[in-house]
Amino acid sequence: MPRYAASVQYDGSLFFGWQILKTGLPTVQAAVEAALSKVANHPVSVICAGRTDARVHGCNQIIHFDTDAARTERGWAYGANANLPDEVAINWVKPVSDDFHARFSALWRRYRYVIYNHPIRPAHLSKGVTWNYRPLDVDRMKEAAEYLIGEHDFTSYRAIQCQAKNPVRNVTRLDISRNGPLIVIDVQANAFLHHMIRNFAGVLMTIGCGKREPIWAKEVLDAMDRAQGGVTASPCGLYFVDVGYDDVFDLPPSESNPHFIAPLMPL
Amino acid sequence: MPRYAASVQYDGSLFFGWQILKTGLPTVQAAVEAALSKVANHPVSVICAGRTDARVHGCNQIIHFDTDAARTERGWAYGANANLPDEVAINWVKPVSDDFHARFSALWRRYRYVIYNHPIRPAHLSKGVTWNYRPLDVDRMKEAAEYLIGEHDFTSYRAIQCQAKNPVRNVTRLDISRNGPLIVIDVQANAFLHHMIRNFAGVLMTIGCGKREPIWAKEVLDAMDRAQGGVTASPCGLYFVDVGYDDVFDLPPSESNPHFIAPLMPL
Repeated sequence: MPRYAASVQYDGSLFFGWQILKTGLPTVQAAVEAALSKVANHPVSVICAGRTDARVHGCNQIIHFDTDAARTERGWAYGANANLPDEVAINWVKPVSDDFHARFSALWRRYRYVIYNHPIRPAHLSKGVTWNYRPLDVDRMKEAAEYLIGEHDFTSYRAIQCQAKNPVRNVTRLDISRNGPLIVIDVQANAFLHHMIRNFAGVLMTIGCGKREPIWAKEVLDAMDRAQGGVTASPCGLYFVDVGYDDVFDLPPSESNPHFIAPLMPL
Repeated sequence: MPRYAASVQYDGSLFFGWQILKTGLPTVQAAVEAALSKVANHPVSVICAGRTDARVHGCNQIIHFDTDAARTERGWAYGANANLPDEVAINWVKPVSDDFHARFSALWRRYRYVIYNHPIRPAHLSKGVTWNYRPLDVDRMKEAAEYLIGEHDFTSYRAIQCQAKNPVRNVTRLDISRNGPLIVIDVQANAFLHHMIRNFAGVLMTIGCGKREPIWAKEVLDAMDRAQGGVTASPCGLYFVDVGYDDVFDLPPSESNPHFIAPLMPL
Protein backbone atom coordinates (compact mmCIF):
# COMPACT_ATOMS: atom_id res chain seq x y z
CA MET A 1 0.00 0.00 0.00
CA PRO A 2 1.22 3.53 -0.72
CA ARG A 3 2.63 5.38 2.30
CA TYR A 4 2.00 9.02 3.24
CA ALA A 5 3.76 11.36 5.66
CA ALA A 6 1.89 14.23 7.32
CA SER A 7 2.56 17.10 9.75
CA VAL A 8 0.19 17.72 12.63
CA GLN A 9 -0.17 20.75 14.94
CA TYR A 10 -2.23 20.57 18.12
CA ASP A 11 -3.17 22.41 21.28
CA GLY A 12 -2.83 19.52 23.71
CA SER A 13 -4.62 21.14 26.65
CA LEU A 14 -7.85 19.18 26.22
CA PHE A 15 -6.21 15.86 25.26
CA PHE A 16 -5.00 12.94 27.33
CA GLY A 17 -1.81 12.82 25.29
CA TRP A 18 -1.01 11.57 21.79
CA GLN A 19 -1.49 7.85 22.11
CA ILE A 20 -4.90 6.24 21.66
CA LEU A 21 -6.38 4.96 24.96
CA LYS A 22 -8.51 1.89 25.53
CA THR A 23 -10.63 4.01 27.89
CA GLY A 24 -11.82 6.05 24.93
CA LEU A 25 -10.66 9.33 26.55
CA PRO A 26 -9.82 11.96 23.90
CA THR A 27 -6.31 11.72 22.45
CA VAL A 28 -4.70 13.43 19.47
CA GLN A 29 -4.02 10.12 17.71
CA ALA A 30 -7.70 9.12 18.04
CA ALA A 31 -8.81 12.45 16.53
CA VAL A 32 -6.30 12.24 13.65
CA GLU A 33 -7.12 8.61 12.83
CA ALA A 34 -10.88 9.33 12.88
CA ALA A 35 -10.44 12.27 10.49
CA LEU A 36 -8.12 10.44 8.06
CA SER A 37 -10.38 7.37 8.14
CA LYS A 38 -13.29 9.53 7.01
CA VAL A 39 -11.26 10.93 4.13
CA ALA A 40 -9.94 7.45 3.16
CA ASN A 41 -13.33 5.82 3.67
CA HIS A 42 -11.60 2.95 5.50
CA PRO A 43 -9.86 2.66 8.92
CA VAL A 44 -6.46 4.39 8.95
CA SER A 45 -3.77 3.86 11.62
CA VAL A 46 -0.98 6.36 12.14
CA ILE A 47 2.53 6.18 13.65
CA CYS A 48 4.05 9.38 15.08
CA ALA A 49 7.62 10.66 15.53
CA GLY A 50 7.27 11.27 19.26
CA ARG A 51 4.34 10.43 21.53
CA THR A 52 3.53 13.44 23.68
CA ASP A 53 2.08 13.31 27.21
CA ALA A 54 -1.28 14.62 28.38
CA ARG A 55 -1.62 18.42 27.84
CA VAL A 56 1.62 18.68 25.81
CA HIS A 57 1.31 20.56 22.51
CA GLY A 58 2.63 19.91 18.99
CA CYS A 59 3.61 22.26 16.14
CA ASN A 60 5.20 19.86 13.64
CA GLN A 61 4.49 16.32 14.82
CA ILE A 62 5.26 14.01 11.89
CA ILE A 63 3.17 10.90 11.23
CA HIS A 64 2.96 8.23 8.55
CA PHE A 65 0.06 6.06 7.39
CA ASP A 66 -0.64 3.50 4.66
CA THR A 67 -3.67 3.53 2.43
CA ASP A 68 -4.91 2.49 -1.01
CA ALA A 69 -7.29 5.44 -1.11
CA ALA A 70 -6.27 7.82 -3.90
CA ARG A 71 -6.56 11.46 -2.81
CA THR A 72 -4.57 14.56 -3.72
CA GLU A 73 -2.23 16.08 -1.13
CA ARG A 74 -4.71 18.93 -0.69
CA GLY A 75 -7.59 16.46 -0.55
CA TRP A 76 -6.01 14.65 2.39
CA ALA A 77 -5.10 17.80 4.32
CA TYR A 78 -8.25 19.85 3.74
CA GLY A 79 -10.51 16.81 4.10
CA ALA A 80 -8.90 15.84 7.41
CA ASN A 81 -9.01 19.43 8.72
CA ALA A 82 -12.74 19.62 8.02
CA ASN A 83 -13.16 16.56 10.27
CA LEU A 84 -10.79 17.53 13.08
CA PRO A 85 -11.66 19.46 16.27
CA ASP A 86 -10.55 23.12 16.48
CA GLU A 87 -7.50 22.11 18.56
CA VAL A 88 -5.90 19.86 15.88
CA ALA A 89 -4.89 20.64 12.28
CA ILE A 90 -2.93 18.86 9.54
CA ASN A 91 -0.25 21.15 8.04
CA TRP A 92 0.44 19.01 4.98
CA VAL A 93 0.24 15.42 3.61
CA LYS A 94 2.78 14.03 1.12
CA PRO A 95 3.44 10.60 -0.45
CA VAL A 96 6.70 8.99 0.78
CA SER A 97 8.68 5.86 -0.02
CA ASP A 98 7.64 2.83 2.04
CA ASP A 99 10.97 2.75 3.92
CA PHE A 100 10.02 6.01 5.63
CA HIS A 101 9.00 5.52 9.26
CA ALA A 102 7.89 8.55 11.29
CA ARG A 103 9.50 7.19 14.46
CA PHE A 104 12.45 5.04 13.37
CA SER A 105 13.64 7.29 10.54
CA ALA A 106 13.79 10.34 12.81
CA LEU A 107 17.35 11.66 13.25
CA TRP A 108 16.55 14.26 15.91
CA ARG A 109 13.65 15.85 17.79
CA ARG A 110 13.21 19.40 18.97
CA TYR A 111 11.03 20.72 21.78
CA ARG A 112 10.34 24.12 23.27
CA TYR A 113 9.40 24.76 26.87
CA VAL A 114 7.68 28.13 27.31
CA ILE A 115 7.68 29.80 30.76
CA TYR A 116 5.61 32.88 31.55
CA ASN A 117 7.71 34.61 34.21
CA HIS A 118 5.66 37.33 35.89
CA PRO A 119 4.19 37.93 39.37
CA ILE A 120 0.65 37.83 37.91
CA ARG A 121 -0.83 34.58 36.57
CA PRO A 122 -1.54 34.84 32.80
CA ALA A 123 -5.23 34.70 31.80
CA HIS A 124 -4.29 34.35 28.12
CA LEU A 125 -2.77 31.04 26.94
CA SER A 126 -3.28 29.82 30.50
CA LYS A 127 -2.90 26.21 29.28
CA GLY A 128 -0.20 27.08 26.72
CA VAL A 129 2.56 28.31 29.04
CA THR A 130 3.98 27.34 32.41
CA TRP A 131 3.57 30.16 34.91
CA ASN A 132 6.45 30.86 37.30
CA TYR A 133 6.00 33.89 39.55
CA ARG A 134 9.58 33.83 40.93
CA PRO A 135 11.98 36.11 38.99
CA LEU A 136 14.20 33.79 36.93
CA ASP A 137 17.79 34.67 36.02
CA VAL A 138 18.31 33.44 32.48
CA ASP A 139 22.12 33.71 32.73
CA ARG A 140 22.14 31.22 35.61
CA MET A 141 19.87 28.91 33.64
CA LYS A 142 22.18 29.14 30.60
CA GLU A 143 25.19 28.29 32.73
CA ALA A 144 23.38 25.22 34.11
CA ALA A 145 22.25 24.18 30.63
CA GLU A 146 25.87 23.84 29.50
CA TYR A 147 26.26 20.79 31.75
CA LEU A 148 23.37 19.02 30.03
CA ILE A 149 24.60 19.46 26.45
CA GLY A 150 26.32 16.44 24.91
CA GLU A 151 26.01 12.65 25.23
CA HIS A 152 25.16 11.61 28.79
CA ASP A 153 23.38 8.97 30.83
CA PHE A 154 20.22 10.91 31.71
CA THR A 155 18.94 8.47 34.36
CA SER A 156 18.44 11.35 36.83
CA TYR A 157 16.29 13.23 34.33
CA ARG A 158 13.93 10.46 33.27
CA ALA A 159 10.68 9.32 34.84
CA ILE A 160 10.83 6.23 37.05
CA GLN A 161 8.32 4.58 34.69
CA CYS A 162 10.44 5.35 31.56
CA GLN A 163 10.63 2.20 29.44
CA ALA A 164 13.66 3.02 27.28
CA LYS A 165 16.35 0.32 27.53
CA ASN A 166 19.21 2.78 27.20
CA PRO A 167 19.28 6.01 29.29
CA VAL A 168 21.99 7.61 27.10
CA ARG A 169 20.89 10.49 24.87
CA ASN A 170 22.79 13.11 22.89
CA VAL A 171 21.59 16.68 23.55
CA THR A 172 22.86 18.77 20.63
CA ARG A 173 21.26 22.06 21.56
CA LEU A 174 19.90 23.66 24.72
CA ASP A 175 19.28 27.37 24.22
CA ILE A 176 17.49 29.60 26.70
CA SER A 177 16.23 33.05 25.79
CA ARG A 178 13.93 35.71 27.21
CA ASN A 179 11.43 37.87 25.36
CA GLY A 180 9.66 40.12 27.87
CA PRO A 181 7.86 37.87 30.38
CA LEU A 182 8.41 34.76 28.21
CA ILE A 183 11.39 32.45 28.68
CA VAL A 184 11.86 29.75 26.06
CA ILE A 185 13.98 26.64 26.59
CA ASP A 186 14.80 25.27 23.13
CA VAL A 187 16.20 21.75 23.22
CA GLN A 188 17.24 19.30 20.51
CA ALA A 189 18.50 15.72 20.88
CA ASN A 190 18.65 12.50 18.91
CA ALA A 191 15.76 11.34 21.12
CA PHE A 192 14.31 12.06 24.57
CA LEU A 193 13.55 9.95 27.62
CA HIS A 194 10.17 10.09 29.35
CA HIS A 195 9.68 13.49 31.13
CA MET A 196 13.28 14.44 30.24
CA ILE A 197 12.46 17.99 29.09
CA ARG A 198 10.02 18.64 31.94
CA ASN A 199 12.72 17.45 34.35
CA PHE A 200 15.27 19.74 32.66
CA ALA A 201 12.76 22.60 33.05
CA GLY A 202 12.19 21.77 36.72
CA VAL A 203 15.92 21.83 37.51
CA LEU A 204 16.58 24.92 35.38
CA MET A 205 13.77 26.91 37.05
CA THR A 206 15.04 25.89 40.52
CA ILE A 207 18.47 27.24 39.53
CA GLY A 208 17.01 30.32 37.78
CA CYS A 209 15.16 31.46 40.92
CA GLY A 210 18.30 31.12 43.05
CA LYS A 211 17.36 28.10 45.17
CA ARG A 212 20.27 26.09 43.74
CA GLU A 213 23.56 26.90 42.02
CA PRO A 214 24.10 26.18 38.30
CA ILE A 215 26.49 23.32 39.13
CA TRP A 216 23.52 21.47 40.65
CA ALA A 217 22.38 20.52 37.12
CA LYS A 218 25.63 18.54 36.78
CA GLU A 219 25.41 17.07 40.29
CA VAL A 220 21.94 15.74 39.47
CA LEU A 221 23.25 14.35 36.16
CA ASP A 222 26.23 12.63 37.83
CA ALA A 223 24.08 11.09 40.57
CA MET A 224 22.31 8.88 38.00
CA ASP A 225 19.37 8.76 40.41
CA ARG A 226 15.97 10.25 39.66
CA ALA A 227 15.42 10.91 43.39
CA GLN A 228 18.22 13.52 43.25
CA GLY A 229 16.42 15.52 40.55
CA GLY A 230 13.92 18.29 41.07
CA VAL A 231 10.21 18.61 40.47
CA THR A 232 8.87 17.57 37.05
CA ALA A 233 7.62 20.83 35.53
CA SER A 234 4.05 21.24 34.24
CA PRO A 235 3.20 19.88 30.75
CA CYS A 236 1.36 23.14 29.86
CA GLY A 237 4.43 24.93 28.46
CA LEU A 238 5.82 22.02 26.44
CA TYR A 239 5.69 22.06 22.63
CA PHE A 240 7.01 19.36 20.26
CA VAL A 241 8.19 21.79 17.58
CA ASP A 242 10.21 19.85 15.04
CA VAL A 243 11.77 16.55 13.95
CA GLY A 244 14.50 15.85 11.39
CA TYR A 245 14.78 13.18 8.68
CA ASP A 246 17.28 12.37 5.95
CA ASP A 247 16.91 14.63 2.90
CA VAL A 248 16.30 11.50 0.80
CA PHE A 249 12.68 11.50 2.07
CA ASP A 250 12.18 15.01 0.66
CA LEU A 251 9.69 16.23 3.29
CA PRO A 252 8.56 19.89 3.24
CA PRO A 253 10.95 22.17 5.15
CA SER A 254 9.96 22.86 8.78
CA GLU A 255 9.95 26.60 8.13
CA SER A 256 7.01 26.16 5.76
CA ASN A 257 4.76 25.10 8.63
CA PRO A 258 2.51 27.63 10.34
CA HIS A 259 4.03 27.07 13.79
CA PHE A 260 1.77 29.23 15.86
CA ILE A 261 4.34 29.80 18.51
CA ALA A 262 6.75 31.14 15.88
CA PRO A 263 5.55 34.75 16.11
CA LEU A 264 6.61 34.69 19.77
CA MET A 265 10.13 33.72 18.80
CA PRO A 266 11.14 32.48 15.31
CA LEU A 267 12.29 28.86 15.12
CA MET B 1 -16.99 54.25 51.01
CA PRO B 2 -13.44 54.19 49.66
CA ARG B 3 -13.19 53.54 45.91
CA TYR B 4 -10.69 51.26 44.17
CA ALA B 5 -9.66 50.94 40.52
CA ALA B 6 -8.37 47.63 39.13
CA SER B 7 -7.08 46.20 35.84
CA VAL B 8 -8.44 42.87 34.58
CA GLN B 9 -7.11 40.54 31.86
CA TYR B 10 -9.24 37.70 30.50
CA ASP B 11 -9.44 35.02 27.86
CA GLY B 12 -13.06 35.53 26.85
CA SER B 13 -13.48 32.31 24.88
CA LEU B 14 -15.44 30.50 27.60
CA PHE B 15 -17.49 33.51 28.74
CA PHE B 16 -20.82 34.90 27.60
CA GLY B 17 -19.35 38.40 27.58
CA TRP B 18 -18.47 40.84 30.35
CA GLN B 19 -21.88 41.78 31.74
CA ILE B 20 -23.56 39.69 34.42
CA LEU B 21 -26.57 37.72 33.08
CA LYS B 22 -29.80 36.88 34.87
CA THR B 23 -29.57 33.40 33.33
CA GLY B 24 -26.50 32.71 35.47
CA LEU B 25 -24.39 31.81 32.42
CA PRO B 26 -20.68 32.49 33.08
CA THR B 27 -19.57 36.08 32.50
CA VAL B 28 -16.34 37.88 33.36
CA GLN B 29 -18.12 40.39 35.60
CA ALA B 30 -19.74 37.56 37.60
CA ALA B 31 -16.34 35.89 38.10
CA VAL B 32 -14.63 39.15 39.14
CA GLU B 33 -17.43 40.16 41.54
CA ALA B 34 -17.46 36.71 43.15
CA ALA B 35 -13.69 36.80 43.69
CA LEU B 36 -13.61 40.38 45.07
CA SER B 37 -16.61 39.62 47.29
CA LYS B 38 -14.69 36.74 48.85
CA VAL B 39 -11.72 39.00 49.56
CA ALA B 40 -13.93 41.80 50.92
CA ASN B 41 -16.14 39.38 52.85
CA HIS B 42 -19.23 41.28 51.61
CA PRO B 43 -20.91 41.60 48.18
CA VAL B 44 -18.89 43.79 45.78
CA SER B 45 -20.27 45.27 42.52
CA VAL B 46 -17.96 46.49 39.76
CA ILE B 47 -18.33 48.96 36.86
CA CYS B 48 -16.08 48.47 33.79
CA ALA B 49 -14.64 50.81 31.15
CA GLY B 50 -16.09 48.88 28.20
CA ARG B 51 -18.44 45.89 28.27
CA THR B 52 -17.12 43.27 25.88
CA ASP B 53 -19.28 40.78 23.93
CA ALA B 54 -19.29 37.02 24.27
CA ARG B 55 -15.89 35.46 23.43
CA VAL B 56 -14.10 38.84 23.27
CA HIS B 57 -10.87 39.07 25.30
CA GLY B 58 -9.41 41.73 27.59
CA CYS B 59 -5.82 42.72 28.46
CA ASN B 60 -6.31 45.91 30.46
CA GLN B 61 -10.01 46.24 31.21
CA ILE B 62 -10.36 48.88 33.95
CA ILE B 63 -12.98 48.57 36.67
CA HIS B 64 -13.90 50.41 39.85
CA PHE B 65 -15.62 49.25 43.02
CA ASP B 66 -16.51 50.65 46.43
CA THR B 67 -15.85 48.91 49.72
CA ASP B 68 -15.19 49.54 53.40
CA ALA B 69 -13.03 46.43 53.63
CA ALA B 70 -9.42 47.39 54.40
CA ARG B 71 -6.96 45.32 52.35
CA THR B 72 -3.54 46.15 50.88
CA GLU B 73 -3.19 46.56 47.10
CA ARG B 74 -1.42 43.19 46.98
CA GLY B 75 -4.06 41.68 49.26
CA TRP B 76 -6.83 42.62 46.83
CA ALA B 77 -4.99 41.46 43.70
CA TYR B 78 -3.49 38.21 45.02
CA GLY B 79 -6.61 37.35 46.99
CA ALA B 80 -8.85 37.87 43.97
CA ASN B 81 -6.51 35.90 41.68
CA ALA B 82 -6.60 32.94 44.06
CA ASN B 83 -10.39 32.93 43.67
CA LEU B 84 -10.63 33.52 39.92
CA PRO B 85 -10.77 30.86 37.17
CA ASP B 86 -7.60 30.29 35.07
CA GLU B 87 -8.99 32.49 32.29
CA VAL B 88 -9.26 35.70 34.38
CA ALA B 89 -6.62 37.60 36.37
CA ILE B 90 -6.40 40.94 38.17
CA ASN B 91 -3.27 42.88 37.11
CA TRP B 92 -3.40 45.43 39.94
CA VAL B 93 -5.75 47.15 42.41
CA LYS B 94 -5.25 50.74 43.56
CA PRO B 95 -7.24 53.23 45.70
CA VAL B 96 -8.69 56.14 43.68
CA SER B 97 -10.61 59.32 44.44
CA ASP B 98 -14.39 58.88 44.50
CA ASP B 99 -14.86 61.02 41.37
CA PHE B 100 -13.13 58.32 39.32
CA HIS B 101 -15.58 56.29 37.22
CA ALA B 102 -14.23 53.42 35.07
CA ARG B 103 -16.72 54.13 32.29
CA PHE B 104 -17.50 57.86 32.43
CA SER B 105 -13.95 59.04 33.20
CA ALA B 106 -12.49 57.14 30.23
CA LEU B 107 -11.02 59.48 27.60
CA TRP B 108 -10.32 56.83 24.98
CA ARG B 109 -10.41 53.06 24.42
CA ARG B 110 -8.08 50.87 22.40
CA TYR B 111 -8.77 47.48 20.85
CA ARG B 112 -6.79 45.02 18.78
CA TYR B 113 -8.25 42.65 16.23
CA VAL B 114 -5.90 39.73 15.51
CA ILE B 115 -6.25 37.80 12.23
CA TYR B 116 -4.39 34.56 11.52
CA ASN B 117 -3.93 34.69 7.74
CA HIS B 118 -2.84 31.28 6.48
CA PRO B 119 -4.36 28.53 4.30
CA ILE B 120 -4.29 26.11 7.27
CA ARG B 121 -6.56 26.63 10.28
CA PRO B 122 -4.54 27.31 13.48
CA ALA B 123 -4.76 24.63 16.18
CA HIS B 124 -3.03 26.91 18.71
CA LEU B 125 -4.97 29.93 20.07
CA SER B 126 -7.91 28.66 18.00
CA LYS B 127 -10.28 30.82 20.10
CA GLY B 128 -7.75 33.67 20.39
CA VAL B 129 -7.46 34.70 16.73
CA THR B 130 -9.78 35.03 13.74
CA TRP B 131 -8.74 32.67 10.95
CA ASN B 132 -8.90 33.94 7.38
CA TYR B 133 -7.55 31.56 4.73
CA ARG B 134 -7.72 34.08 1.88
CA PRO B 135 -4.43 35.96 1.30
CA LEU B 136 -4.97 39.50 2.62
CA ASP B 137 -3.17 42.52 1.16
CA VAL B 138 -2.31 44.75 4.12
CA ASP B 139 -1.59 47.75 1.87
CA ARG B 140 -5.14 47.67 0.54
CA MET B 141 -6.46 47.39 4.10
CA LYS B 142 -4.34 50.37 5.19
CA GLU B 143 -5.66 52.45 2.29
CA ALA B 144 -9.25 51.60 3.30
CA ALA B 145 -8.54 52.33 6.97
CA GLU B 146 -7.64 55.94 6.12
CA TYR B 147 -11.31 56.62 5.30
CA LEU B 148 -12.40 55.51 8.77
CA ILE B 149 -10.00 57.70 10.77
CA GLY B 150 -11.47 60.90 12.21
CA GLU B 151 -14.87 61.98 13.50
CA HIS B 152 -17.72 60.35 11.57
CA ASP B 153 -21.28 59.12 11.88
CA PHE B 154 -20.62 55.37 12.08
CA THR B 155 -24.24 54.26 11.59
CA SER B 156 -23.15 51.81 8.86
CA TYR B 157 -20.64 50.20 11.19
CA ARG B 158 -22.81 49.66 14.25
CA ALA B 159 -25.11 46.79 15.10
CA ILE B 160 -28.82 47.27 14.45
CA GLN B 161 -29.43 46.68 18.17
CA CYS B 162 -26.84 49.32 19.24
CA GLN B 163 -28.39 51.49 21.95
CA ALA B 164 -26.09 54.53 21.80
CA LYS B 165 -28.07 57.75 21.24
CA ASN B 166 -25.35 59.34 19.12
CA PRO B 167 -23.67 57.38 16.26
CA VAL B 168 -20.76 59.85 15.97
CA ARG B 169 -17.38 58.63 17.20
CA ASN B 170 -13.83 59.95 16.80
CA VAL B 171 -11.35 57.31 15.58
CA THR B 172 -7.89 58.66 16.42
CA ARG B 173 -5.85 55.68 15.31
CA LEU B 174 -6.35 52.74 12.94
CA ASP B 175 -3.06 50.96 12.28
CA ILE B 176 -2.74 47.68 10.42
CA SER B 177 0.43 45.60 10.50
CA ARG B 178 1.57 42.11 9.58
CA ASN B 179 3.95 39.84 11.51
CA GLY B 180 4.26 36.53 9.63
CA PRO B 181 0.79 34.98 9.43
CA LEU B 182 -0.62 37.45 11.99
CA ILE B 183 -2.33 40.68 10.96
CA VAL B 184 -3.19 43.10 13.76
CA ILE B 185 -5.75 45.89 13.41
CA ASP B 186 -5.01 48.40 16.17
CA VAL B 187 -7.78 50.91 16.71
CA GLN B 188 -8.30 53.72 19.19
CA ALA B 189 -11.31 56.04 19.58
CA ASN B 190 -13.00 58.17 22.23
CA ALA B 191 -15.59 55.36 22.43
CA PHE B 192 -16.97 52.59 20.20
CA LEU B 193 -20.44 51.62 19.01
CA HIS B 194 -21.75 48.05 19.35
CA HIS B 195 -19.90 45.69 16.95
CA MET B 196 -18.03 48.69 15.47
CA ILE B 197 -14.58 47.05 15.44
CA ARG B 198 -15.88 43.68 14.25
CA ASN B 199 -17.69 45.52 11.43
CA PHE B 200 -14.46 47.42 10.60
CA ALA B 201 -12.67 44.05 10.52
CA GLY B 202 -15.32 42.51 8.26
CA VAL B 203 -15.08 45.35 5.72
CA LEU B 204 -11.26 45.51 5.89
CA MET B 205 -10.91 41.73 5.29
CA THR B 206 -13.33 41.93 2.34
CA ILE B 207 -11.12 44.66 0.86
CA GLY B 208 -7.87 42.89 1.78
CA CYS B 209 -8.81 39.73 -0.11
CA GLY B 210 -9.66 41.72 -3.24
CA LYS B 211 -13.45 41.31 -3.28
CA ARG B 212 -13.95 45.07 -2.92
CA GLU B 213 -11.84 48.17 -3.56
CA PRO B 214 -10.46 50.29 -0.67
CA ILE B 215 -12.90 53.11 -1.47
CA TRP B 216 -15.72 50.76 -0.45
CA ALA B 217 -14.90 51.45 3.21
CA LYS B 218 -15.88 55.11 2.55
CA GLU B 219 -18.95 54.19 0.48
CA VAL B 220 -20.23 52.08 3.38
CA LEU B 221 -19.51 54.95 5.80
CA ASP B 222 -21.30 57.51 3.61
CA ALA B 223 -24.36 55.27 3.14
CA MET B 224 -25.19 55.58 6.87
CA ASP B 225 -27.03 52.28 6.54
CA ARG B 226 -25.91 49.10 8.31
CA ALA B 227 -27.37 47.00 5.46
CA GLN B 228 -24.62 48.39 3.17
CA GLY B 229 -21.87 47.09 5.46
CA GLY B 230 -20.17 43.73 5.29
CA VAL B 231 -20.23 40.70 7.53
CA THR B 232 -19.59 41.23 11.26
CA ALA B 233 -16.26 39.47 11.86
CA SER B 234 -15.85 36.78 14.55
CA PRO B 235 -15.34 37.88 18.19
CA CYS B 236 -12.43 35.40 18.62
CA GLY B 237 -9.71 37.80 17.45
CA LEU B 238 -10.91 40.85 19.39
CA TYR B 239 -8.96 42.15 22.42
CA PHE B 240 -9.81 45.17 24.58
CA VAL B 241 -6.20 46.24 25.16
CA ASP B 242 -6.21 49.63 26.82
CA VAL B 243 -8.17 52.62 28.08
CA GLY B 244 -7.01 56.13 28.94
CA TYR B 245 -7.84 58.41 31.90
CA ASP B 246 -6.73 61.84 33.02
CA ASP B 247 -3.32 61.79 34.74
CA VAL B 248 -4.99 63.26 37.83
CA PHE B 249 -6.25 59.75 38.71
CA ASP B 250 -2.66 58.48 38.75
CA LEU B 251 -3.37 54.94 37.53
CA PRO B 252 -0.43 52.57 36.80
CA PRO B 253 0.91 53.00 33.25
CA SER B 254 -0.52 50.56 30.68
CA GLU B 255 2.96 49.33 29.81
CA SER B 256 3.32 47.91 33.31
CA ASN B 257 0.59 45.33 32.63
CA PRO B 258 1.50 41.84 31.51
CA HIS B 259 -0.47 42.07 28.25
CA PHE B 260 -0.08 38.55 27.03
CA ILE B 261 -0.50 39.49 23.42
CA ALA B 262 2.37 41.98 23.75
CA PRO B 263 5.10 39.48 22.81
CA LEU B 264 3.34 39.03 19.47
CA MET B 265 3.57 42.76 18.79
CA PRO B 266 4.45 45.33 21.47
CA LEU B 267 1.72 47.80 22.37
